[in-house]
Amino acid sequence: MAPGDGLHDELCIAVEHGRIIDVVPAARALAQYEPAMLLDRPRHVLMPGLVNAHTHAAMALLRGYADDIPLERWLNERIWPAEMRLATPQFVADGTQLAIAEMLRGGITCFSDMYFFPDVVAETALSSGIRATVGMIVLEFPSPWARTADEYIRKGLAVRDRYKGHPLINTAFAPHAPYTVSDDTLHRIRKLADELEVPVEMHVHETATEVREAVEQTGQRPLARLAQHKLLNAAFVAIHATQLTAGEIAQLAEVGASVVHCPRSNMKLASGACPVAKLVESGVNVAIGTDGAASNNRLDLWADLQAAALLGKLTAGDAAAVPARTALEMATLGGARALGLADQIGSLVPGKWADMICVELDELYLQPMFDPLSHLVYAASREQVTDTWVAGKHLLSERTLSGIDTVDLTTRIAGWRDKVLTT
Amino acid sequence: MAPGDGLHDELCIAVEHGRIIDVVPAARALAQYEPAMLLDRPRHVLMPGLVNAHTHAAMALLRGYADDIPLERWLNERIWPAEMRLATPQFVADGTQLAIAEMLRGGITCFSDMYFFPDVVAETALSSGIRATVGMIVLEFPSPWARTADEYIRKGLAVRDRYKGHPLINTAFAPHAPYTVSDDTLHRIRKLADELEVPVEMHVHETATEVREAVEQTGQRPLARLAQHKLLNAAFVAIHATQLTAGEIAQLAEVGASVVHCPRSNMKLASGACPVAKLVESGVNVAIGTDGAASNNRLDLWADLQAAALLGKLTAGDAAAVPARTALEMATLGGARALGLADQIGSLVPGKWADMICVELDELYLQPMFDPLSHLVYAASREQVTDTWVAGKHLLSERTLSGIDTVDLTTRIAGWRDKVLTT
Repeated sequence: MAPGDGLHDELCIAVEHGRIIDVVPAARALAQYEPAMLLDRPRHVLMPGLVNAHTHAAMALLRGYADDIPLERWLNERIWPAEMRLATPQFVADGTQLAIAEMLRGGITCFSDMYFFPDVVAETALSSGIRATVGMIVLEFPSPWARTADEYIRKGLAVRDRYKGHPLINTAFAPHAPYTVSDDTLHRIRKLADELEVPVEMHVHETATEVREAVEQTGQRPLARLAQHKLLNAAFVAIHATQLTAGEIAQLAEVGASVVHCPRSNMKLASGACPVAKLVESGVNVAIGTDGAASNNRLDLWADLQAAALLGKLTAGDAAAVPARTALEMATLGGARALGLADQIGSLVPGKWADMICVELDELYLQPMFDPLSHLVYAASREQVTDTWVAGKHLLSERTLSGIDTVDLTTRIAGWRDKVLTT
Repeated sequence: MAPGDGLHDELCIAVEHGRIIDVVPAARALAQYEPAMLLDRPRHVLMPGLVNAHTHAAMALLRGYADDIPLERWLNERIWPAEMRLATPQFVADGTQLAIAEMLRGGITCFSDMYFFPDVVAETALSSGIRATVGMIVLEFPSPWARTADEYIRKGLAVRDRYKGHPLINTAFAPHAPYTVSDDTLHRIRKLADELEVPVEMHVHETATEVREAVEQTGQRPLARLAQHKLLNAAFVAIHATQLTAGEIAQLAEVGASVVHCPRSNMKLASGACPVAKLVESGVNVAIGTDGAASNNRLDLWADLQAAALLGKLTAGDAAAVPARTALEMATLGGARALGLADQIGSLVPGKWADMICVELDELYLQPMFDPLSHLVYAASREQVTDTWVAGKHLLSERTLSGIDTVDLTTRIAGWRDKVLTT
């Protein structure tokens, strides 16, 4: 997945204690190792698991609840009131489990979440075996999770302390957006993030309206204000970033910040188009996120990486922009870099966790086969994912999910549907 | 699918001699009819089959052959040379069969084709049972199908004569594009189309470059030139139309012409974005096409209707633009209108052909279920299509295709792959 990496035939990945210990030609593998378990996937691509670099997993319970509505009304009249009414630990547990079932089946092995009750998100992720970066969400407004910025930070840090050093659960500061977090809080988060060495991820420059209103209210574009608070550095993750000047792109590149591109959400909410080709050209790391299911409405990183390539070309006015290889890199190693996990996941290299997926290539839709990389991006879909491993654990096997009781889950979701409509 | 049409529970469609004869509440159906065959699909939406209003079916054999290349080079260095080398009746038969297998599995019951050897396209469509509008392609350049515009027209008309009045095969004039067809030929096509009462479909205003070069060479934008030749009328189908002024939109509305929007192809080739919301608002009929598999690379109208909704919102700068209902209408009745078949297909109304599909809704990805229409557009994918009927014939049954030997087809495609690479 890194530039220069190639596509190899007939390779074997040897896994021990959840980590990749070797990548060897299949012919040599059995001479070198005595595997406890040997799996053969002869018509498949084996590749790193996809990294969903931004979602609000529990919002899966609001999938399709507020479509075809302008952004402001979507947020103020539908989504926020519903969340204030409904977001309880049980809502977050059930919604997150629904999201995880969808993500594992679609080859996502790691997701970065921003939602209330991150403690519940972490527990739910752990119980399913998926890898998660759990956002320590911070807002100036009260929610069912916390009342003040101080309480958000305190409760977030408690989650961090609980999972510090955990092999599957990581944490990040997740101040919601420039317009929902005060200068004082930004200042505090920056100091804590530096101390604790965690990423800071934030919705930034999502829409032109956000930028315009910020300029009216503060005299500054949001990124300038964040720069003033010294938040723009290699641990900073700008989510959405559809409105960027050439100077802002250069600034993000200079400090080594990442951008999370959520193309389907940005299109559906008519937010704008992230200048992906320019960012990549300038050396900015770009990752891909599905965003939440209330604004996508699929937690399907294949659909989003495909949209990233297609929209990226249109935005650049160049059919050669954002080629297949770039889209795949953004959806794997790009995500890993954004989450500060590039030495742990994102490519199939000895020493990294065995977060891997198999994609079956003998589907009629994928014929003729000229270039597997190209087909993965432009022709395949998540239905071709047959197997998903996280840290060597086989969570999806020949399209069957283990560890999540989907029948019971479906019943619980139907209950939430009724509550959403009647509460 | 028409404005005002609703979603109904527990309905039965009665079919006789390939046509819908009644739409009745399930409870009453068995009292009224003694069906030879009764099919129950309890967790599904039954809806009109999708109409793929523009494709080059045989190009399925070039799927993924030339990705991530700028449009001019894509056409001049890759696609056209490959076609001139390879396009034989057998190439068209095999490529079209591959495309039809993909389309039927994805719920497409009718496609409009523009390619060489339309006689072979018609035969291949017939042998599979799918409905097709076969384009009488016209170019000023020689190809394996014909050498001069005159020969293209003559051979096209022979295909039309063979299938005149056929229940499944219709024809349309398909002059390739303003820049590949002369004034004399346009004039002749218009006269013939008026006489024969067939649609005229043409790639028009696909890119800004096309429009700019036309202005440089002729002093006119292509649509103005076509208007001068009296081609703009209710039988005219403008394919792509990413570059439209307000005046041109008003003109298309006034004459009752249709636009075929191919959003994924337009994005992949960085051609531009069709102003769908403005067209719909102005009363222009909009249909959706996949375009050929060399520029999409999926013949998947679900992906394109979803892209039409998402890109339509982004282009309009309004999350309420191109709502789910509009996207579904464009992909069904809009396509039927463009092809002059609105009295025959496109909605489930007594008297129309029983071109229908079932979409299974109990998939985890589609939960919770607030609004089936919304889920069809924003969350579903072609994998949820379980059944496809064309003129009452059951061509896909519980996801199994009848009438196409896909194993044999796969072998033939592999042969073409080798020929594409070595010829």
